Amino acid sequence: MSDITALVSKLSGLGFNDAPVEHAPVENVEQWAEALSTVSGLPAEYTLTKTLIFKPKQPKSEAMAPVVVIAKHDSATNSKAIGNELKLKELRFANDDVLTDMFQTAKGSVSPFALANVSKENIANVRVIIDKALLSDSTGNIAFHPLTSSHTVFVSAATLQSFIKSVDGLTHVTEMDFTADAETAPVVKAEKKPATAAAATASADEVAGVSKGGIDVSKDVDFPRWYQQVLTRSDMLEYYDVSGCYIVRPLAYFVWQQIQEFFDAGIRSLGVKNCYFPMFVSSKVLEREKDHIEGFAPEVAWVTRAGSTELAEPIAIRPTSETVMYPYFAKWIRSHRDLPLKLNQWCSVVRWEFKNPQPFLRTREFLWQEGHCAYMTEKEAMVEVYDVLTLYRRIYEELLAVPVIEGVKSEKEKFAGSVATTTVEGFIAATGRGIQGATSHYLGQNFSKMFNIVVQDPEDSGADRPKLHVHQTSWGLSTRTIGVMVMTHGDDQGLVMPPRVAETQVIIIPCGLTAKHTEEDRRVVSDACLNVEARLRAVGVRAESDLRELYTPGQKFNHWEVRGVPLRVEIGPKDLEKNSVLTARRDTFAKAPMALDGLESSIQLMLMTIQNDMLTNARKTFDERVKIVLEWSEFVPILNSKCLALIPWCERSVCEDQIKTRSSRDSLGDEPEDEKAPSMGAKSLCLPSKQPTNPPIVHGETKCIQCGENAKRYALFGRSY
Amino acid sequence: MSDITALVSKLSGLGFNDAPVEHAPVENVEQWAEALSTVSGLPAEYTLTKTLIFKPKQPKSEAMAPVVVIAKHDSATNSKAIGNELKLKELRFANDDVLTDMFQTAKGSVSPFALANVSKENIANVRVIIDKALLSDSTGNIAFHPLTSSHTVFVSAATLQSFIKSVDGLTHVTEMDFTADAETAPVVKAEKKPATAAAATASADEVAGVSKGGIDVSKDVDFPRWYQQVLTRSDMLEYYDVSGCYIVRPLAYFVWQQIQEFFDAGIRSLGVKNCYFPMFVSSKVLEREKDHIEGFAPEVAWVTRAGSTELAEPIAIRPTSETVMYPYFAKWIRSHRDLPLKLNQWCSVVRWEFKNPQPFLRTREFLWQEGHCAYMTEKEAMVEVYDVLTLYRRIYEELLAVPVIEGVKSEKEKFAGSVATTTVEGFIAATGRGIQGATSHYLGQNFSKMFNIVVQDPEDSGADRPKLHVHQTSWGLSTRTIGVMVMTHGDDQGLVMPPRVAETQVIIIPCGLTAKHTEEDRRVVSDACLNVEARLRAVGVRAESDLRELYTPGQKFNHWEVRGVPLRVEIGPKDLEKNSVLTARRDTFAKAPMALDGLESSIQLMLMTIQNDMLTNARKTFDERVKIVLEWSEFVPILNSKCLALIPWCERSVCEDQIKTRSSRDSLGDEPEDEKAPSMGAKSLCLPSKQPTNPPIVHGETKCIQCGENAKRYALFGRSY
Repeated sequence: MSDITALVSKLSGLGFNDAPVEHAPVENVEQWAEALSTVSGLPAEYTLTKTLIFKPKQPKSEAMAPVVVIAKHDSATNSKAIGNELKLKELRFANDDVLTDMFQTAKGSVSPFALANVSKENIANVRVIIDKALLSDSTGNIAFHPLTSSHTVFVSAATLQSFIKSVDGLTHVTEMDFTADAETAPVVKAEKKPATAAAATASADEVAGVSKGGIDVSKDVDFPRWYQQVLTRSDMLEYYDVSGCYIVRPLAYFVWQQIQEFFDAGIRSLGVKNCYFPMFVSSKVLEREKDHIEGFAPEVAWVTRAGSTELAEPIAIRPTSETVMYPYFAKWIRSHRDLPLKLNQWCSVVRWEFKNPQPFLRTREFLWQEGHCAYMTEKEAMVEVYDVLTLYRRIYEELLAVPVIEGVKSEKEKFAGSVATTTVEGFIAATGRGIQGATSHYLGQNFSKMFNIVVQDPEDSGADRPKLHVHQTSWGLSTRTIGVMVMTHGDDQGLVMPPRVAETQVIIIPCGLTAKHTEEDRRVVSDACLNVEARLRAVGVRAESDLRELYTPGQKFNHWEVRGVPLRVEIGPKDLEKNSVLTARRDTFAKAPMALDGLESSIQLMLMTIQNDMLTNARKTFDERVKIVLEWSEFVPILNSKCLALIPWCERSVCEDQIKTRSSRDSLGDEPEDEKAPSMGAKSLCLPSKQPTNPPIVHGETKCIQCGENAKRYALFGRSY
Repeated sequence: MSDITALVSKLSGLGFNDAPVEHAPVENVEQWAEALSTVSGLPAEYTLTKTLIFKPKQPKSEAMAPVVVIAKHDSATNSKAIGNELKLKELRFANDDVLTDMFQTAKGSVSPFALANVSKENIANVRVIIDKALLSDSTGNIAFHPLTSSHTVFVSAATLQSFIKSVDGLTHVTEMDFTADAETAPVVKAEKKPATAAAATASADEVAGVSKGGIDVSKDVDFPRWYQQVLTRSDMLEYYDVSGCYIVRPLAYFVWQQIQEFFDAGIRSLGVKNCYFPMFVSSKVLEREKDHIEGFAPEVAWVTRAGSTELAEPIAIRPTSETVMYPYFAKWIRSHRDLPLKLNQWCSVVRWEFKNPQPFLRTREFLWQEGHCAYMTEKEAMVEVYDVLTLYRRIYEELLAVPVIEGVKSEKEKFAGSVATTTVEGFIAATGRGIQGATSHYLGQNFSKMFNIVVQDPEDSGADRPKLHVHQTSWGLSTRTIGVMVMTHGDDQGLVMPPRVAETQVIIIPCGLTAKHTEEDRRVVSDACLNVEARLRAVGVRAESDLRELYTPGQKFNHWEVRGVPLRVEIGPKDLEKNSVLTARRDTFAKAPMALDGLESSIQLMLMTIQNDMLTNARKTFDERVKIVLEWSEFVPILNSKCLALIPWCERSVCEDQIKTRSSRDSLGDEPEDEKAPSMGAKSLCLPSKQPTNPPIVHGETKCIQCGENAKRYALFGRSY
């Protein structure tokens, strides 16, 4: 149980039927009280609470036995007193790992309801303490966050107790009187930082067997939940039992293979060759480039054991392969004749982030390609950086029908260890946030100096020729592409696939058959479907007939709509009489008859039209939502209206920090926070290659809208993923 | 320094010039003495030795400080006395990990020379004890294994000391008198099991900058070293600093991509779809199928830490994905209409073996595909098992020009958890060993029962329909294919690539230009090369011109021969006069002129001929080396003549064990052991689908040649990888 709907259904089973109340996300009890004070229709009286998770000191060999304390918000929950009560030593607040892995929740969102998320194996070790003050609560309305700090439910003491009892396998439940101890108790603050763990656990309802099918939440109303539903119900993705990892199912993997094919051909024509480096890195190699590794160190997964043997030295799983590959570049590059060296690999990398995972967008293991090249000169390297960036833009625009903005990252946002990072930036209209699409880095000589990748100067024929460090690039594109595509095109009916990457481009469904039709009538229609399928396949259209007998045409329509098939062809007896079929576009729902004669080229044309229209529409939305902002006062309101801001900017990191802080603070309270957002502050997305000209930046005259220093260029700022 | 040649060169630098003496591999001092007694030309007197590596008890946080004891074979090297001498606690024999990772050697092959393999970082922590008895050795001939137990070098005490001194960074060297302690000393046996770590460290000479180029060892003379040289000098593969992991360079990865393309098309036509499951598995899921996991548990790599955070539960890296996938099969398969479910993924898996690694054949991480399908019936499942096996056979035969024998594995050799394992078995003629090519398993209902993958019986319409467990298959093919291809076709000039998988099929080299030719002459020849290249590329032939100016044609010939390019086209002024070119086949070295007119189809035809000839020749060798053996007495001699044996067999596991033991014991002394072989005993490779008919197996009459029980079928037995 991990989201509000599932929770409500669970509580409803316990006889409790009120919907959770929505409010601004809160960080502490004070904010909670304030937030609730602005909501109408609340109970006249209610009791605020806190739910705390402690961990005793234990031998590592023992299963972890956390303590969950459910208390009135102002009860003096002294950890020493609790420890004494349970005969446990040194209780401490549990770290994020425990919240994430065992309770599938996160700081700020902890509530008694997280108990339902604990596995059977673990629940037996959990001890629960209930504050007696809550059990004797007279208001009948005890407030808890239903797994997200932007909502509140009010339950009675009886409902709370029923809920606790309903948790299978939970046996250690103790009541405790905290007033007795109030004198010595320090004030315990509620946890900070609102967030939810819904993303990590959205599979719960699926696993529980809730019927799959259409999407039952609107993209506009609850975007995070909509995203999860679209992915799982379209069979694109499955949640997995290791947090932050997901199963990429065939529908999504097909998209990835289309991207691979396009990109592989593209880089081959640039002279890049594919290879495969090991996923393991020794610590000494990983840590050789200090700036670079600093950016990754907290997220590196370490293998320390094989079978039952402890390894002499822990071995890292690559978070990216610069330090894996470059020692070998140093070996392979002996002379300028070995240049350029252009390699690429398709692989998975691991970045063990502790932030909320998000399918495709932020996952602990993800599929990507990483290209690594070495050149004699900066000039050659830069040509390639932009050649690859163009391929990335084309993947987004031509394959996925997703518009992007090309540009360069700010100093603060560039890749650790690079000289410059170029990027294609996308936009998720539903949340008004930018998203980094793919990056292509010019690494300069930073790594070649560190790894001693040198050649002798071919221009200098002297005996003592100087050694030149090579100029390097690296560039990567990941399965994040798929997430951006889904977010951009999906609608309340589910996925909408751009034809170029759709595994099934055309679904053919027999229609208009009723009880009065004969077997022969049915056979004629089926044959017509198969005939159309064969004709389309013959010209390379990925067409499929759905002749399943147990389903109605309506059920089939829904089935394929959720899966985003770009074009539906309906064939019935009446259509055949007119020597035509009926087409229905997934993107616009437009229906139109189409003659069977020349159907092949009509369909191909229509698929191209769909592809183009999807890009055009997405681009229109993107363009409308990028605003030139010339006054700081407009900056946050523009972000709050789900737009990105193009501002004259000084390009100083300190100013970027200020923009983040000010836009974060200023925005609070104006807008309910999206729980999936990593941060509410705006950051620079890029310095667009194509700069606005109206008004132009006049050097020495135009000022940065935040700090008033001289502006250098327009920068694209926004909230982002 | 990791092999004999490099060692000899090192010793030669110390003024020592005698070549190592070759003899039967030995397991202990007794065998060593005996083996040397059969070799002629030895010094009249010599001293046998033992080299032992100990490890003190230390805090984990400290760098490991091993103790290397170099002693006369019969000195009483009491570990307690050594510990006292060095003030170290609880000395124990170091485990395999230390030998492999720190000294890049292995049990049985340890010698002082392994000190040269220790990294600079580690060598400072190594303490060496030299037996005073050796230093006062009067024979002048102290015997050591030069990193392999099948060879011996004889050095003087002075050379030994020079060698020790030559080890950079080694500071702790102590002399010790073991005779003083002889009373209390237990007898210490020399380590058992001959083996070498050459494979893990063959890069040493490369790293040291020894000139790369042609192959300087014959395939017939030193096959393991030949294999390493061919792989590294052809740029197919690079050794890597994590033991058991290798870099797959573009030349090899191209082969893999050709295999992927062929196989992907093949399985797509069988209705299989590609997907991607996470590489991480929780321990509870991994361990769910007991029989299955037993086979893999000792080799599973565990992630226990992310950044600086210890994970609450260790997470495994998949060794294969049955238990990763099947919980989700249980979820996705709700009804017989969800069947068949056919999935495949291309990924890497990790099996942390402690045996000697071997590039492509036995590596800790390897690339593969794994298919997993579920069916309603055994019959359907078996059809697919064999459809896939056919694709595997075609990959070997049609793409790699490597013949294989199709069959079924014995009970003992089948996949852990399967009902039956089908296989394609290859043969490495150079060593006379079989090698498993790829396997396709019928899993029966073993996993579906364990993971509860059930559907209701569609045939039974009653209210209480029974649940049926699905029938499953799994099948995999790995980059091992590449190793088999290299071993099969390579020759003393290097790699020989089958045209279908060669990245460069035709290399075009300008020839016949001398000092007397003008710039214009040269331009005409270059243009002709580029013109031929363009014409060939236009018809899909992967042709390339080598117009580099600094190299002679001869150097270019060598360069491309090592890399196995199937066909060379030489173009010179005289060829152009005759409107022709000169072709040279890599496989046969046959040279022939070819008319420029119609060159495209002539070349295409020649490439096809090469492809066919390579398979035909390899098959001829294979066929000649598979012998029908009807008497046990012939069995081991047949193996010793580098053949495989087809024997009437009872198919009992106990008999298979006996065959292994008897063939292992019987063979000792008959043949120098190949250090790379995992075991010298013969095992069953498969029960071939195509059974010999002359003589036929007469049931109830034909007896198993080993045990005399009734024979069921012919089985293919052999030594194997």
